[in-house]
Amino acid sequence: MTASEPGTVRPGGRTARVRDAVRRATLAELAERGYQGLTVENVAARSGVHKTTVYRRWRDAEGLVADALELAAGEPWPVPDTGTLAGDLRAIARLVATGFTDPGQGPVTRAFVLAAAQSTGAARALHAFFARRHEQSAAVVERAVGRGEAPAGTDAAEVVRITVAPLYYRLFVTGEPVDEAAADRAAASAATAARTGILVT
Amino acid sequence: MTASEPGTVRPGGRTARVRDAVRRATLAELAERGYQGLTVENVAARSGVHKTTVYRRWRDAEGLVADALELAAGEPWPVPDTGTLAGDLRAIARLVATGFTDPGQGPVTRAFVLAAAQSTGAARALHAFFARRHEQSAAVVERAVGRGEAPAGTDAAEVVRITVAPLYYRLFVTGEPVDEAAADRAAASAATAARTGILVT
Repeated sequence: MTASEPGTVRPGGRTARVRDAVRRATLAELAERGYQGLTVENVAARSGVHKTTVYRRWRDAEGLVADALELAAGEPWPVPDTGTLAGDLRAIARLVATGFTDPGQGPVTRAFVLAAAQSTGAARALHAFFARRHEQSAAVVERAVGRGEAPAGTDAAEVVRITVAPLYYRLFVTGEPVDEAAADRAAASAATAARTGILVT
Repeated sequence: MTASEPGTVRPGGRTARVRDAVRRATLAELAERGYQGLTVENVAARSGVHKTTVYRRWRDAEGLVADALELAAGEPWPVPDTGTLAGDLRAIARLVATGFTDPGQGPVTRAFVLAAAQSTGAARALHAFFARRHEQSAAVVERAVGRGEAPAGTDAAEVVRITVAPLYYRLFVTGEPVDEAAADRAAASAATAARTGILVT
């Protein structure tokens, strides 16, 4: 990554505005054309940022994707708090399922995963993105342990993985529908597994 | 698919031999170069089958991948029979995890999923491949229902999805290690979910 590190410029400054414009253009291009259609030229044209600036700071499609993911990882994410582990995991699973069919978010998710399969830089950025999401979601497991719904030492990231994995599997591997019923079954399975202590590490 | 349908030629006949040679060459090319490096020319050269024959019957990379998957789907697959649902699901999960790190099978699995993300024909073939695998694996759930380990009406395909999905999620989405411990946790979660009746449809 050759882009400025977050925090080295004041929020709302010119550098931050340029970075945000390039990021938005990257997401729009990914939604429209996918990773294979992502070029510095198109992102420059769409963002209104000069092509030489985009080349200098982001270099190529890989750099653009990595930066877009880095920004996405830092964004607030609605961690549910329904009062039960089963309810919270169901909310997380439904959020993921809804995201897949969202006309803006769905194609971008596909593009990110496809990019990660083809580029080491994108894979590293996607890995960091999910590590952050798993961390953020850990709160629902910590609260469940506090309420006595799961034993102490339950691996929060693993509970989240088991909650969302069947949805990603349907979308990216088997090409099966990702509906609310599938989301609810995946969440219920993860909640049950957590309750029985299988996911203590 | 323009290749001959299986069964229209006698096994071991010239058509079957050509198809097998092309399929082996496709798998070897996928392992070496991935989906993006798969070409009719390279498959023809590696298989020793004339280029015009490969073009006529398989047309392009998409046709080659679809046919390789169709043949793979028909192959015998070792459905475990350990005497318990938990043991059978653990064996299935470990088999998947081992396949990912196998130097021949791992790259081909990646190439198939990447191909499916980029081509409708490959996606259709991969969907059919997994439908067949889920069907074959249903035996372990049927036996478990017979032994009283899971209630009647348990959705066998869903049990298998929940068993293997966390492994595919780690490999293709988050880029996390797929080890035996991860396989065992995924299998134990699925077995527990099945036992409690969550996966009855």
